[in-house]
Amino acid sequence: MYHATRKKVHILLHPELGETKWDKIVNGFIILLILLNVIVVILETVQPLHDRYIDFFHYFDLTSVIIFTVEYVLRVWSCDHDPRYQHSFYGRIRYIFSVDGLIDLLAILPFYVHVVVGLDLRVLRILRLLRFLRLFRLTAYMKSAKMIRNVFVKRASELKLSVVLILFLVIIASSIMYFAEHLAQPTVFSSIPATLWWAFVTLTSVGYGDMVPITLIGKIMTAVLMLCGVAIFALPAGIITAGFLEEIQKAKEKKTIKCPQCGNTFHTDQAH
Amino acid sequence: MYHATRKKVHILLHPELGETKWDKIVNGFIILLILLNVIVVILETVQPLHDRYIDFFHYFDLTSVIIFTVEYVLRVWSCDHDPRYQHSFYGRIRYIFSVDGLIDLLAILPFYVHVVVGLDLRVLRILRLLRFLRLFRLTAYMKSAKMIRNVFVKRASELKLSVVLILFLVIIASSIMYFAEHLAQPTVFSSIPATLWWAFVTLTSVGYGDMVPITLIGKIMTAVLMLCGVAIFALPAGIITAGFLEEIQKAKEKKTIKCPQCGNTFHTDQAH
Amino acid sequence: MYHATRKKVHILLHPELGETKWDKIVNGFIILLILLNVIVVILETVQPLHDRYIDFFHYFDLTSVIIFTVEYVLRVWSCDHDPRYQHSFYGRIRYIFSVDGLIDLLAILPFYVHVVVGLDLRVLRILRLLRFLRLFRLTAYMKSAKMIRNVFVKRASELKLSVVLILFLVIIASSIMYFAEHLAQPTVFSSIPATLWWAFVTLTSVGYGDMVPITLIGKIMTAVLMLCGVAIFALPAGIITAGFLEEIQKAKEKKTIKCPQCGNTFHTDQAH
Amino acid sequence: MYHATRKKVHILLHPELGETKWDKIVNGFIILLILLNVIVVILETVQPLHDRYIDFFHYFDLTSVIIFTVEYVLRVWSCDHDPRYQHSFYGRIRYIFSVDGLIDLLAILPFYVHVVVGLDLRVLRILRLLRFLRLFRLTAYMKSAKMIRNVFVKRASELKLSVVLILFLVIIASSIMYFAEHLAQPTVFSSIPATLWWAFVTLTSVGYGDMVPITLIGKIMTAVLMLCGVAIFALPAGIITAGFLEEIQKAKEKKTIKCPQCGNTFHTDQAH
Repeated sequence: MYHATRKKVHILLHPELGETKWDKIVNGFIILLILLNVIVVILETVQPLHDRYIDFFHYFDLTSVIIFTVEYVLRVWSCDHDPRYQHSFYGRIRYIFSVDGLIDLLAILPFYVHVVVGLDLRVLRILRLLRFLRLFRLTAYMKSAKMIRNVFVKRASELKLSVVLILFLVIIASSIMYFAEHLAQPTVFSSIPATLWWAFVTLTSVGYGDMVPITLIGKIMTAVLMLCGVAIFALPAGIITAGFLEEIQKAKEKKTIKCPQCGNTFHTDQAH
Repeated sequence: MYHATRKKVHILLHPELGETKWDKIVNGFIILLILLNVIVVILETVQPLHDRYIDFFHYFDLTSVIIFTVEYVLRVWSCDHDPRYQHSFYGRIRYIFSVDGLIDLLAILPFYVHVVVGLDLRVLRILRLLRFLRLFRLTAYMKSAKMIRNVFVKRASELKLSVVLILFLVIIASSIMYFAEHLAQPTVFSSIPATLWWAFVTLTSVGYGDMVPITLIGKIMTAVLMLCGVAIFALPAGIITAGFLEEIQKAKEKKTIKCPQCGNTFHTDQAH
Repeated sequence: MYHATRKKVHILLHPELGETKWDKIVNGFIILLILLNVIVVILETVQPLHDRYIDFFHYFDLTSVIIFTVEYVLRVWSCDHDPRYQHSFYGRIRYIFSVDGLIDLLAILPFYVHVVVGLDLRVLRILRLLRFLRLFRLTAYMKSAKMIRNVFVKRASELKLSVVLILFLVIIASSIMYFAEHLAQPTVFSSIPATLWWAFVTLTSVGYGDMVPITLIGKIMTAVLMLCGVAIFALPAGIITAGFLEEIQKAKEKKTIKCPQCGNTFHTDQAH
Repeated sequence: MYHATRKKVHILLHPELGETKWDKIVNGFIILLILLNVIVVILETVQPLHDRYIDFFHYFDLTSVIIFTVEYVLRVWSCDHDPRYQHSFYGRIRYIFSVDGLIDLLAILPFYVHVVVGLDLRVLRILRLLRFLRLFRLTAYMKSAKMIRNVFVKRASELKLSVVLILFLVIIASSIMYFAEHLAQPTVFSSIPATLWWAFVTLTSVGYGDMVPITLIGKIMTAVLMLCGVAIFALPAGIITAGFLEEIQKAKEKKTIKCPQCGNTFHTDQAH
């Protein structure tokens, strides 16, 4: 019976496994609680709302932590029904240090650290932002999440290189602009690290206008760097687009191939 | 004869069905009236024009509503010639609650609500913007409208997920930036909801410059978030591009090829 | 001999036909003169340069017009060697009203209009910008110009529709924002036509910051419209990318196809 | 023995050839030193750091130059083990004037020029930025560098043309805007060269807001030019995306497929 309960709990917390109404209700409740937590953390920073509903915010936070803790304990307890975490001890350790397990732990840990050590309240509030990470676990329920993740995973090395190239361009751009603008605007372009901010704001085409070159050489270099930026920042977009096309074609490519040796037809995925 | 008239009216209002000169004239007149309505609503907000041509604007609006009402009534009356709305009663109800029917109704309804209830004039003017929705019905006459709609429909789930990811990034970005900048600029980054505006303006790379981080940690986080934004905002662009390629390839794959040796025609996909 | 001279002139002015050193020199000289004209028109607007080199600018302009006129007359005279403009009279008329012929005429016409009618000097200077159109004729010499033109020509109807959708979004965005912001900032968002400027600046993600919404509803609507803008502005980018891929694949697709009826292989371009 | 040492040195400096621990340590040290040099050049511009650690910066620079010089001399000495630079004299000359060789030379040359000629210290600091070029050599160690370089090399002529088109659009945009805005804002849009800055900032969608059109005609022209800009700036992005797809497909087309019926392997392109 103990084993059966654990299995039921495991299914209850993994809606993709269960079929009963209760599985859906429990899961819907957890999703709702995560979204409400995000909304509460956001609204709490509005001073008038904070002052008026301070007690509500406090008790809502307390209740959330308790529910998330119960959920976390139950998840760890029942995780050995998942084939990936089968061993009764090492399986649970592996679950705790899995990405999903860590995200769930980080959502509740700051509260307990605060209870034990007594954190600065401001730090506690910042650490509560870790709860937002659970948002990304919600995307797992969306149909196309796997395709988008595949694109990022398969093209990871190209994306990494394009980030490196962007960083190199940003570093070179800010070094050039520092020497071009420092004498004309010593307080604005005060050092290369300060100019790095200009480079990011300009090359991502955000352009706040808080740091703007005024010298002729600075403007010419900016024009050149902006053109380079267009090419370099087109890289991640191009890589992601190409990745999507690959995924879409792979999905379609369950077409038959005819073997030139024996003449039989078979599916491409069969051959791998 | 009554039936024949209704059929003629139906064809008159659906230029893709008719061939006579009159069909084209009636349809061209309706399109012109829609465009003029949009222009008048726009120009009416220019104070000098409004003061000078107030009577013209009033009578133009009145005339438009009358013509649109006649058109709407005739459409409902004659819609049972469309195979989708064949039943004399339920067919018409279905037409009224179809997207096209509702758009046409919303274009005239505010006027009659005003006549009956007496709306605030400002509200009436805002509600008249609903007339702009008819603009999108005009795109139905353009050749490639179907292809563009297909792209958005077929890739809807990926686009939905990328909007969700954008919203998550915006929420996380504004929460981080609130804690980074609030102490340094308490009136600018006053709360997370206020910082949401900064996140949208920055991550879409608009960058008005009305809210700009000034702390070191705020600038570093912004640089990181802008790089994430480049990747996340490349998603919808990549999805749409991949969708177009799919549509174009599908259109080409249907073309027949004639073999120059044997003279037979076959589809290109047959030849693979 | 007269005929032979005309043929030589024709070849002289069309470097893609000729092989002699003189053809290249004449053509290189014309290209140089076009580029110099652009540079001179640009530099002439710098007040100190204008004041100092006023005579040089005047004589350079005069010389350019004379050379361009001679070139234009020779082109018209010799154009009947081009198979497209073969007839001795109608061929020349057709050449004069061809895109290339009109661009060359517009480069010199303002000068003669000025001599005859006496144009305002400012208008004359503006009309001289028409000479810049000749720049685009230079791209004809570049290898990949045909591919890029093909992309725009073949995907013209999709690009046209995406421009129409952009314009609709801009019109709807500015109408909504006018009603959202007019009461709060009556002098900034003074009318819908004035707000159109805001919509263009925001939706193209330029974001000068000269018109920024301050009301809550205005900011929320802007966030929604910016997300729509990301999707709508991804359309032309996606269309152009898809067009390029089509061109590249077409260039590669001179591969053989095996006819399923007769078994012979042939090239795809043969089959069209 | 002399020959063997030279070979060992060559392998030591080309980690892709060697397998021993020492090869990796030497190479890792050089990479570290390059990154430290970049960081030091950046931090040195922060006034408080510069004042406090002036001696450290001086000795670090001296040490770096010595190590880089030793490395450079060893590279030139051992380069004839590379099949591209085999000749004992001409091979070394070719290496010195290769891109890699020149980048390494430019990293140390300014120091020796300074020792001999006595450069202005500010000029010396600017020339030290040449050391940043070595950053790009680091990307050679990254897996996907070849793919990204291939995209840029193979689509070079299309990218070149799109840069030319961007420059033409920028020139035409600034000429039009100068005539539209000069009378209204004579100090801001003071000349066409000054307006070029506006054109770059606007068409790359950076939009600092330091130069903003205020006349009606200027705003209308800007809206038109921004739409053209969207299309023209989509060109490089589209070209790069199409290039990536080509590379990815080429990489996939080389994979062998094993027929599940007859057991023979063949290339997928064979099966078509």
